[in-house]
Amino acid sequence: MEIDEVPIVRITEQRRSDFKDTVTVELPITIILDNRELVTLLCSPAKLDYLALGFLVSEGLIKSKDDIDSITIDSERGFARITSRNNMVIAPDLSSPQLIASSSGRTLQPYASANGDSPGEIKSGLQISPAEIYTIMDDFVQRSRIFRKTGGVHSAALSDRQNILLFSEDIGRHNAIDKVIGECLAIGLTTDDRIMITSGRVSSEIILKIARRNIPVLISKSAPTTLGVKIAADRGITLIGFVRGSRMNIYSHPSRVLTGKISQSD
Amino acid sequence: MEIDEVPIVRITEQRRSDFKDTVTVELPITIILDNRELVTLLCSPAKLDYLALGFLVSEGLIKSKDDIDSITIDSERGFARITSRNNMVIAPDLSSPQLIASSSGRTLQPYASANGDSPGEIKSGLQISPAEIYTIMDDFVQRSRIFRKTGGVHSAALSDRQNILLFSEDIGRHNAIDKVIGECLAIGLTTDDRIMITSGRVSSEIILKIARRNIPVLISKSAPTTLGVKIAADRGITLIGFVRGSRMNIYSHPSRVLTGKISQSD
Repeated sequence: MEIDEVPIVRITEQRRSDFKDTVTVELPITIILDNRELVTLLCSPAKLDYLALGFLVSEGLIKSKDDIDSITIDSERGFARITSRNNMVIAPDLSSPQLIASSSGRTLQPYASANGDSPGEIKSGLQISPAEIYTIMDDFVQRSRIFRKTGGVHSAALSDRQNILLFSEDIGRHNAIDKVIGECLAIGLTTDDRIMITSGRVSSEIILKIARRNIPVLISKSAPTTLGVKIAADRGITLIGFVRGSRMNIYSHPSRVLTGKISQSD
Repeated sequence: MEIDEVPIVRITEQRRSDFKDTVTVELPITIILDNRELVTLLCSPAKLDYLALGFLVSEGLIKSKDDIDSITIDSERGFARITSRNNMVIAPDLSSPQLIASSSGRTLQPYASANGDSPGEIKSGLQISPAEIYTIMDDFVQRSRIFRKTGGVHSAALSDRQNILLFSEDIGRHNAIDKVIGECLAIGLTTDDRIMITSGRVSSEIILKIARRNIPVLISKSAPTTLGVKIAADRGITLIGFVRGSRMNIYSHPSRVLTGKISQSD
């Protein structure tokens, strides 16, 4: 259950009344890798296996599903137990300083490593039109079922330009993206030449997840940060923000957005 | 500088044009406590001393300003160096599992400790009327200067019911609250019988910060999570969400909200 009803008192201009409100469920899940507690994520309870997979790949601990022998989810007790193939995954040194994300957050990596194991600049010939971007964003918003009921979650999705292929919601915007990335890994869907969509703001950690999966285009309903823009520019990612109605801002690598019919000025 | 201008391509119905957009600055700051790297926060660059103080108190590492000998901020190189009095602060065991916040996030504490050093139920005779809540929220929104320019930050504030006493913005909603808490500590302002206001969603980590500072009322423009509501109910906090126009939802301890003039039903 991703939503729950709680008793509230609702106040309006006219009255004070008892009411039931639909609230998004928050669940702590501890990821245990090869019998070692790695991290506790606060998240929404759906697709926890994808979340665990996506988290490990976003942290650079695994590269493919083949690095994993098994994932066991115990959502009742709040555990995701992962066994790596031949215990081959080297977990990060937890005595090193932690990076606390700016928002909806997660990462174990100290910030320095943002420029460490750099995957280089993403080369992709993908091109997309504004009309396609608006259509994808409309579809994305329509699918945000839990957000419409609770106002308490973020969404993420993967698109091949024509369609939304995968969609996730989570109380954390990082988690929503990790669930999409994990599902790609689980079902063997490539992220190359694909588009990630997020409801949330684009800070450095978000763009680093996208870079690691070689995704050339990120579109968001919201604002980026300066560091998010810088990393997108450095990594060859087309970062598009404030996609609302028939408007958008392109913060980096605008050549992937084709505008044949509208006039170009400046 | 909390904002910066970046070159963008803006697409509207009519045209594609080069433009300058105002973007919120994201800065990594590593908190070094007694020569030991504790954590790296991704944050907005204002009030970094208050952020460091607020972070330490929210983590339960210090209780008052007197626990600190000095704070030195080097925002150029991204460091906040804190010396505790007689090196008395016991930093957390970083080899224990980390809690990754659901959003705008930070905490070093494993979730279990949420119920560990419990400060018990907050006793406060504070009462507030809906009209006062709407006035505070209007004032709060008016002050969100960087949000209006960039759309990329959260805000937090402390109120004594009549006025907003302190106000902060940050790319992280946790950081914004920690800056307010840290400023209270720095200038010797009590948080007892006060009201915290946040622009962000209320998850468990947010309400635990409020509980630790003995703050009896939290009001938010946004939604809570189930765990946020549960902890607020357990700790004696009046949690009010979706304060918009002349409406609000009270999720816990509604008796602190006085509604004399409007009719009460059910």
